[in-house]
Amino acid sequence: MTWDILNIIGTIAFAISGAFIAREVNYDLLGGYVLGFTTAFGGGLVRNLLIEIPIELIWSQDYLFGIAFLGITIAFFMPDNWIGHLKKWVIFFDAIGLAAFAIQGADYAVSIQAPLIAVIVAAVMTGAGGGLIRDVFAGRKPMIFHSEIYALWAAFAGFMIGLDLMRGPYATLFLLIVIVIFRMISVHFKWNLPHKK
Amino acid sequence: MTWDILNIIGTIAFAISGAFIAREVNYDLLGGYVLGFTTAFGGGLVRNLLIEIPIELIWSQDYLFGIAFLGITIAFFMPDNWIGHLKKWVIFFDAIGLAAFAIQGADYAVSIQAPLIAVIVAAVMTGAGGGLIRDVFAGRKPMIFHSEIYALWAAFAGFMIGLDLMRGPYATLFLLIVIVIFRMISVHFKWNLPHKK
Amino acid sequence: MTWDILNIIGTIAFAISGAFIAREVNYDLLGGYVLGFTTAFGGGLVRNLLIEIPIELIWSQDYLFGIAFLGITIAFFMPDNWIGHLKKWVIFFDAIGLAAFAIQGADYAVSIQAPLIAVIVAAVMTGAGGGLIRDVFAGRKPMIFHSEIYALWAAFAGFMIGLDLMRGPYATLFLLIVIVIFRMISVHFKWNLPHKK
Repeated sequence: MTWDILNIIGTIAFAISGAFIAREVNYDLLGGYVLGFTTAFGGGLVRNLLIEIPIELIWSQDYLFGIAFLGITIAFFMPDNWIGHLKKWVIFFDAIGLAAFAIQGADYAVSIQAPLIAVIVAAVMTGAGGGLIRDVFAGRKPMIFHSEIYALWAAFAGFMIGLDLMRGPYATLFLLIVIVIFRMISVHFKWNLPHKK
Repeated sequence: MTWDILNIIGTIAFAISGAFIAREVNYDLLGGYVLGFTTAFGGGLVRNLLIEIPIELIWSQDYLFGIAFLGITIAFFMPDNWIGHLKKWVIFFDAIGLAAFAIQGADYAVSIQAPLIAVIVAAVMTGAGGGLIRDVFAGRKPMIFHSEIYALWAAFAGFMIGLDLMRGPYATLFLLIVIVIFRMISVHFKWNLPHKK
Repeated sequence: MTWDILNIIGTIAFAISGAFIAREVNYDLLGGYVLGFTTAFGGGLVRNLLIEIPIELIWSQDYLFGIAFLGITIAFFMPDNWIGHLKKWVIFFDAIGLAAFAIQGADYAVSIQAPLIAVIVAAVMTGAGGGLIRDVFAGRKPMIFHSEIYALWAAFAGFMIGLDLMRGPYATLFLLIVIVIFRMISVHFKWNLPHKK
């Protein structure tokens, strides 16, 4: 139940972030839908490909598709001056999505006895893979590679779950809250991973 | 029979469009082949991945590979002043390819009892996915996201077939002709989907 | 045994090339890891997808992951003035990786009775596909499409193995050496495939 709600929050936030970026690069409505859906569902799709979970599971999430569709439509047509207010909330919801998706991806990978490295990759791809494809489709350098700390928190989730350090609903919820907090702190203090140049 | 001819026309048109774009971005001959093959076969490939049709079916289309190879070679080396004349024809043949591939993709998806949303995605990916990958490989913003109405016609095919509104060879041929006509009209009148900015 | 060593050399060279490019485009450490791993393992992954070899085989290469991780870390943090010296060696090791990976990819494809065209695609994707994805993630036009002769040597390996012209360890080693030599010659003399413009 809690899980479903987090999933919905994450899907909406991811879909909206795709629609916002489609606006930024001046794509049309179809571009908005593709970027929105890609951000919301692309990560799970790539994860399923990579660790060979049947993809048909993606297609059975009907109500999530509907919610994403609605979110994208509203985000695409909303007046410019709303966006400024909304952006902070999107970062927060997006952090919930990142955490929820990363944990879910890691759980999937563990449930099929994938090795640790695959669990981490599954967490990163599920949490951050959608945004990666979104940025490639938007013709820009993927955000996760150069600004702030984002995918690392997904990797952290994969690490904790892959090593079996977080088991059961309470530990998982705790992990989720920790990731959301760290993600918000990295945004607030503009934490960055080391760059060479 | 009719179907095979449409398939060949679409494959040639898609392969040529890839070769033309390779010339535009100053890629070498290998870039021309990769972009040409990607445009012609990439959409079907991604569709097969997404709805889990065995990919080996792609590799059995020997004669289509040969035809695409020939088309790319000619298009890559043809003199510049030929291209102007040819481009209008390529847009027309490309519209046939878009329609034929989208219908084929939707039919595939229906034949494996995929849900409606997967039928639409299959139609869009088969019809427009090759061009999408082509543009990513060419380092440009994918055309389908920002100019004219293109992928929407593929989605329309998926919608009609997914809802079982078009059954049998005559209805399908009719749908194909409708899509080609609408696509040509969108090009002629420079129809665009709504942009936000 | 020889094969394992070539595999390790190729993996290290590919991983380092990814880390170098992450530095060039000013990505952070995570970008370095993703680009490095993508270059080293992305080609094999795409090949497995395309010719339907189970992907789990990728995840069992634990020690190669460790080696790549180490190589990327060192390459990412190494002082600028080291890179100049190292770059020539990277081109040489990269040529070994290209040859070893292309041959391995072709062998895989032959072992599952794939048709000739799929053998060639498998060789090209395994040898050059990682670099292709790396360049897309780095937001640049893929190198294999416009400069020097690179992927063609991988295609050559696929052709020779697909036609059963190279069988057994000695012939294969000979083919590998021929490809490395030709690759180094193409770099030295700046050989290019024909461009149209």
